Amino acid sequence: MDLANCYKKVRLRTEQICSPLQTEDYVVQPVVDVSPPKWHIGHVTWFFETFILKPYFMGYREFNPNYNYVFNSYYETVGNRVIRTDRGNLSRPTVADIYRYRAYVDEAMAKFLCQEPSAEVKELLILGFNHEEQHQELLLTDIKYILGHNPLFPAYDDSYVSPKIAGAESAGFIKMDEGVYEIGYSGEGFCFDNELNRHKVYLNAYEISPNLVTNAEYLEFIGSGGYHDFRHWHAEGWDWVNIHKVEAPLYWHLIDGEWHNYTYHGLKPLSLTDPVCHVSYFEAYAYASWKGLRLPTEFEWEEAATKFSWGKSWEWTESAYLPYPGFAKAPGAIGEYNGKFMVNQKVLRGASEVTSPGHSRITYRNFFQTHLRWQFTGIRLAR
Amino acid sequence: MDLANCYKKVRLRTEQICSPLQTEDYVVQPVVDVSPPKWHIGHVTWFFETFILKPYFMGYREFNPNYNYVFNSYYETVGNRVIRTDRGNLSRPTVADIYRYRAYVDEAMAKFLCQEPSAEVKELLILGFNHEEQHQELLLTDIKYILGHNPLFPAYDDSYVSPKIAGAESAGFIKMDEGVYEIGYSGEGFCFDNELNRHKVYLNAYEISPNLVTNAEYLEFIGSGGYHDFRHWHAEGWDWVNIHKVEAPLYWHLIDGEWHNYTYHGLKPLSLTDPVCHVSYFEAYAYASWKGLRLPTEFEWEEAATKFSWGKSWEWTESAYLPYPGFAKAPGAIGEYNGKFMVNQKVLRGASEVTSPGHSRITYRNFFQTHLRWQFTGIRLAR
Amino acid sequence: MDLANCYKKVRLRTEQICSPLQTEDYVVQPVVDVSPPKWHIGHVTWFFETFILKPYFMGYREFNPNYNYVFNSYYETVGNRVIRTDRGNLSRPTVADIYRYRAYVDEAMAKFLCQEPSAEVKELLILGFNHEEQHQELLLTDIKYILGHNPLFPAYDDSYVSPKIAGAESAGFIKMDEGVYEIGYSGEGFCFDNELNRHKVYLNAYEISPNLVTNAEYLEFIGSGGYHDFRHWHAEGWDWVNIHKVEAPLYWHLIDGEWHNYTYHGLKPLSLTDPVCHVSYFEAYAYASWKGLRLPTEFEWEEAATKFSWGKSWEWTESAYLPYPGFAKAPGAIGEYNGKFMVNQKVLRGASEVTSPGHSRITYRNFFQTHLRWQFTGIRLAR
Amino acid sequence: MDLANCYKKVRLRTEQICSPLQTEDYVVQPVVDVSPPKWHIGHVTWFFETFILKPYFMGYREFNPNYNYVFNSYYETVGNRVIRTDRGNLSRPTVADIYRYRAYVDEAMAKFLCQEPSAEVKELLILGFNHEEQHQELLLTDIKYILGHNPLFPAYDDSYVSPKIAGAESAGFIKMDEGVYEIGYSGEGFCFDNELNRHKVYLNAYEISPNLVTNAEYLEFIGSGGYHDFRHWHAEGWDWVNIHKVEAPLYWHLIDGEWHNYTYHGLKPLSLTDPVCHVSYFEAYAYASWKGLRLPTEFEWEEAATKFSWGKSWEWTESAYLPYPGFAKAPGAIGEYNGKFMVNQKVLRGASEVTSPGHSRITYRNFFQTHLRWQFTGIRLAR
Repeated sequence: MDLANCYKKVRLRTEQICSPLQTEDYVVQPVVDVSPPKWHIGHVTWFFETFILKPYFMGYREFNPNYNYVFNSYYETVGNRVIRTDRGNLSRPTVADIYRYRAYVDEAMAKFLCQEPSAEVKELLILGFNHEEQHQELLLTDIKYILGHNPLFPAYDDSYVSPKIAGAESAGFIKMDEGVYEIGYSGEGFCFDNELNRHKVYLNAYEISPNLVTNAEYLEFIGSGGYHDFRHWHAEGWDWVNIHKVEAPLYWHLIDGEWHNYTYHGLKPLSLTDPVCHVSYFEAYAYASWKGLRLPTEFEWEEAATKFSWGKSWEWTESAYLPYPGFAKAPGAIGEYNGKFMVNQKVLRGASEVTSPGHSRITYRNFFQTHLRWQFTGIRLAR
Repeated sequence: MDLANCYKKVRLRTEQICSPLQTEDYVVQPVVDVSPPKWHIGHVTWFFETFILKPYFMGYREFNPNYNYVFNSYYETVGNRVIRTDRGNLSRPTVADIYRYRAYVDEAMAKFLCQEPSAEVKELLILGFNHEEQHQELLLTDIKYILGHNPLFPAYDDSYVSPKIAGAESAGFIKMDEGVYEIGYSGEGFCFDNELNRHKVYLNAYEISPNLVTNAEYLEFIGSGGYHDFRHWHAEGWDWVNIHKVEAPLYWHLIDGEWHNYTYHGLKPLSLTDPVCHVSYFEAYAYASWKGLRLPTEFEWEEAATKFSWGKSWEWTESAYLPYPGFAKAPGAIGEYNGKFMVNQKVLRGASEVTSPGHSRITYRNFFQTHLRWQFTGIRLAR
Repeated sequence: MDLANCYKKVRLRTEQICSPLQTEDYVVQPVVDVSPPKWHIGHVTWFFETFILKPYFMGYREFNPNYNYVFNSYYETVGNRVIRTDRGNLSRPTVADIYRYRAYVDEAMAKFLCQEPSAEVKELLILGFNHEEQHQELLLTDIKYILGHNPLFPAYDDSYVSPKIAGAESAGFIKMDEGVYEIGYSGEGFCFDNELNRHKVYLNAYEISPNLVTNAEYLEFIGSGGYHDFRHWHAEGWDWVNIHKVEAPLYWHLIDGEWHNYTYHGLKPLSLTDPVCHVSYFEAYAYASWKGLRLPTEFEWEEAATKFSWGKSWEWTESAYLPYPGFAKAPGAIGEYNGKFMVNQKVLRGASEVTSPGHSRITYRNFFQTHLRWQFTGIRLAR
Repeated sequence: MDLANCYKKVRLRTEQICSPLQTEDYVVQPVVDVSPPKWHIGHVTWFFETFILKPYFMGYREFNPNYNYVFNSYYETVGNRVIRTDRGNLSRPTVADIYRYRAYVDEAMAKFLCQEPSAEVKELLILGFNHEEQHQELLLTDIKYILGHNPLFPAYDDSYVSPKIAGAESAGFIKMDEGVYEIGYSGEGFCFDNELNRHKVYLNAYEISPNLVTNAEYLEFIGSGGYHDFRHWHAEGWDWVNIHKVEAPLYWHLIDGEWHNYTYHGLKPLSLTDPVCHVSYFEAYAYASWKGLRLPTEFEWEEAATKFSWGKSWEWTESAYLPYPGFAKAPGAIGEYNGKFMVNQKVLRGASEVTSPGHSRITYRNFFQTHLRWQFTGIRLAR
């Protein structure tokens, strides 16, 4: 597919994701990590305007100079911005204004892409597509949070179909040999800077489960008092559990003695065979510890991932999010993409049911802070 | 006017106030004291449904049982409610849903009011009208805050006309004699419970200014370093100034060396002759102290108010908000109306440019915490 | 008694209060309102050095210039100071250093007082005595807090004798007539600026109890669920109860089903006939409200106080702490004594068991914020 | 040396460290991470009482059952404890009480050690020695914080001599070859559980500096605006710098244009040739980033450490604190020693000038959170 069509396709999918929303759903920010959908759709547009149209499209006229202030996420290079906790306090620009902004930028991009761009711009374009795909995933997780924390528990979309993955694998653990392995992206296509350089690591012999932990298995942990026994938890995780009175994964509700969870179809009885989802790293670690097992490292995961199906939920690893040997930040604003977050976060591997098609890779590294749960985060065990 | 028509008129005005809003403007809560407009229009409707239709209109079917949870403000008697800081996190019910709720309740009320209600219900109805009028004022102050804290500074309504008050009075202070005076409401019409009982107070001789402090006068205070000299401030006010780095009234912006303020028409150069507005009690006190004067007590104000024009802005008094002798809370939820706020607040007297017509009275007591500024609060001096 | 002897007597009493302490007891600040005893004994010394010796005693050499920074409490006029929350973080100057400082200042004061001071200095001296007496009371309340919050519950002094007050009065309320009364200090002796001017107030007819509420009576309030029924509380008090999970007065402990309280003799079974003590204004108000009664105003109290015994505990009044008509701050640092605290506090009247002898007066106004309980605060009812 | 003498020697050193202190210095906790010295000396004693005397010394009578509550640090297995932020609020037990506790336990230990203990107890004993040595180091860092944050800047001990390390090495970086290396403790002697298992890692070729970064070099970073340029910092580090207005390492003071730092001898002009010390991981990372270099990983450090002198300050590494392959927690309370802290911390390698003699090892892993600076933390560069 040519770049102009890729652009259209990516942009269209963002709008499709938002199509079931009411105007009001675009506006709110119930917790700092969740951005209002209207902010997402403005921000991904701002990305193309700021990094492609303004520097490379001669004669381009900025849609509205104030939008730089409103839609910059965290690029210090590009100037001041609305502080993150204020995103949900902005009623203007309206949703209609932002769709006009999208249309304006899309029109300019269509013109711009009539001619084959330079290699440098091409690279930025592909980064822009991947950036928008990441925000598509965030849109879906943020929408789930917004609706799932509303006392009316509205459904997002009754026609939403959760992607299927291959059925349960054999129960045994996969055995992996010790040795030197190569880790990181290699190939021609796109990857993020944090997947480079490909480099050698030494792995001890290990075993890894082909299956994700299920809701039924996680209920055993709850039933055995797992949330009330400090021995399974990190000290910091134990504080987190007690301060926030955590008793179950996010979106779980005990109603008249039966567990329900909030889904894109509304509040539903918990499916026991589904993988457990929306757990923090602290909970993933505690569950593994309670089982006498552990989480895999990201290197163990990457090496073994060809041997099982994945892609249902992001999987917490034991690895801290750190640069690979030879990692180098790009100069300028684009260099702020990943490197500055490489501290006090954990790596997640795989992909979730809301990851955009074609966006996942075996070397892809996602990362979140250890207490966060609003992503589709699950658990795979190793030993 | 009969009750059915009064009802219609009050309800209509609420909707007129909201008519210039975009859907998104109804949703946000940029600071805890400011409620989303959609919450206000739902809450005043809930008031009639809860206190009149449900108990007194036989056969009335509640619109949606969840709305009690969503639209209860602070009535502990009536059950749980969305915590105040979460009002701006709710995208549902939508604005359209809430207007349907209004229409449904209005229709039921129209039927209910076909028959002359009992004296007891009549009293509740009139309380409901006054309650909605209070929220009309809050709607206008909250809308100002929402739009005035948006980086785009949108106008609320270009056709908005600020009510005129009689021009400046003579410059001299009005002299009042010492003696025993009667304070509090007397008469046949409606008053709030906090205006009763009418009772005697002893006032020393005092003098009170017929004019409100103007922006020009307040600029002198700023220019003389008033915000940086602890001697004018209460200890708690001085902390407030320093923690929040307060340098001017709310909505004031120094742009290229010229003071502007945000108005319902957008950001405008400051009018020097207008009364200063949107100051906290701390600022009002500091200004008076810098002038070597003081704020009047609420009793001094009430006694002198026939001698000057008022009604442009709520005026801070030196009086703490306390019950009058013989004050008694009504039984049940209605009793939560005023009494439980009678601590650590200051009384404001008068009325502001956004007070609903007919809502003000010389005995009316408004009250806010000493640091708040989003109301139309001004300064009158005494000595 | 002459001034030199008064000085000695006041200073000696401070040291006697501290004599049962261990060195470590002088150092800690378990909560921001409680100052370390060593800070108190340094601060009252600094008061005489700063306001008398340095300006008026020719040739006086400051003990240590750093002490101004360490021992200034809140006098902005006199320069920077250790922030209040840091008082308990200072191990130096040591207790021995501070007693050396006291001895040094006392010696200089003794020399200075060999000659009759001017009227101006005399006034400052008497203010200094009263200031030190206020800190004697604070020392005793702060020591109680420090030891009473230690898990070992050490006694302060086994030989401590709680002052007796006259036994229970007759059970009936004292009836007072309505009329104009005079309130505030008049006479020749010392009073604080906040007791002036003496002025007229109009009081409605009221009744006031000759007795303080007892522990037995307060237990009924607890037993009837008073801490769990929002109807008795101010909204702000109700938040305070719930956030801090308050279930009883400060220092009360339910041990094996029996109520104990911490006293200067250690943890003891609760005496049912003693006046209830260490309650916040919020609790005092809720108790009165539960009884269907109210707290007296400070004016009602002052007018009736000749008709009953008082002096066992400070009594919360319904009155906010505000300036009397004609109140004027002294110029300079001394003017910071009272006026700048006249907002968001309640007046207490009477005196407590730890008030220094001769320090109480019928016109004396103490004041604290509505949530504070570490003072010996009690309840008297009115209607 | 036999165990009884080892015990005596370790215990004696703790008391020697405290000998220059005033009683008051033992009591305060100016920040949550710093424990009062009296808490340290009680806690290390409690460790021997709880884990050796009570379970293994027949007939041993506990000194005071309340001390378990007071001196337990974080062992959930052993019961409740004073919350960490309250350690500085306890005036009792006094310093003298705690020295009596030490003497009592020491006497019991002397009796207990007359007989050769079992292998199991021997292991606990050696853990107890190492535990007390760790607290000796903490004592010295905490004392520095307590005195270094006092406005009088008292010296700790004028006779304190900072240990010398070998002079500056050659300026060039040490080149290390890529390959598989073995990491972790091997041998007969004591090591902590976090140093095991010894395991293989693959290292890419790297270079590491033989020298620590000096104060002179760090001043260049400050002078070039390093604290004001977001490009060198992690996003979280940049927030930390701005919230806390960090401008220099801890203990640095700019006095009349000249940099000083607080030392055990009091406030002194900054020595330019000393290694920079008391920097957070965020600062270490930013400095390295500004130089276009990076911090070594803990594996790189361990492999290269035989080639340079170390032991002057703990050196931040880029490695997150994670378990080695095969790491297993001991059962019971001792298992809480290290494992539960293995999240969101960075590994430090080496040893500092206040590390107890004989306590350091090339495989030793220290760990702190990324914002902490009160340890003697320094910077070594790699590339």
